[in-house]
Amino acid sequence: MDASWLDAPRWNADGLVPAIAQDALTGRVLTLAWMNREALAATVSSGYAHYWSRSRGALWRKGEASSHVQKVREVRLDCDDDAILLLVEQAGGIACHTGRERCFYKRLDDGQWRETDPVLADPEVIYGRP
Amino acid sequence: MDASWLDAPRWNADGLVPAIAQDALTGRVLTLAWMNREALAATVSSGYAHYWSRSRGALWRKGEASSHVQKVREVRLDCDDDAILLLVEQAGGIACHTGRERCFYKRLDDGQWRETDPVLADPEVIYGRP
Repeated sequence: MDASWLDAPRWNADGLVPAIAQDALTGRVLTLAWMNREALAATVSSGYAHYWSRSRGALWRKGEASSHVQKVREVRLDCDDDAILLLVEQAGGIACHTGRERCFYKRLDDGQWRETDPVLADPEVIYGRP
Repeated sequence: MDASWLDAPRWNADGLVPAIAQDALTGRVLTLAWMNREALAATVSSGYAHYWSRSRGALWRKGEASSHVQKVREVRLDCDDDAILLLVEQAGGIACHTGRERCFYKRLDDGQWRETDPVLADPEVIYGRP
């Protein structure tokens, strides 16, 4: 798992860097999540996006509960080595846990954050009722 | 300058959230930078991207030195209110301080980060010689 390319990102004090996922087909920016070294290694070795869940404190295979996995086409690093960009194929066309295509569904409009994107699937259906 | 929409982002312990800039014309993800409350307010009031420079500890009007300003078409917030997405018109077609279109010019390729994007303008010309 360990390799020198994993040393290139400037992991922050918590061992993380922000990782943007962009839909390779539509060009939409879907999500911003966080990766640690283990998540980046798992992403590259499996070909599917893995992140570090800051709220759960755990490695998180995107789509493990929803089946909305992200197949990774490209992994990119920025000039300062402190941000990652993934180009992905988004399974189901839904990246957001609210059942929307993308997490960035609120637009600032005359001093108000307005929801611009429809809910494509009920989260209770995606994740199952408790 | 103060308004309730500025309370929506969940500013982190340093008062910051990550802000992605995406080219509204090409769809390319250009940069990931950081905003504080003041930067977001200045972005919206001026119509041009402002960030907080963590290295300089100062408000930073993108393009103030390079003239490569980012005219903002849309400001978006994600589901968890902890990341911002700007859709921008990138002046000069150059967002990166290295003289490239975008900061994400390194792609992981067989265990190596390879530079895939050309330098469009010499940084010494962009920023002037000392």
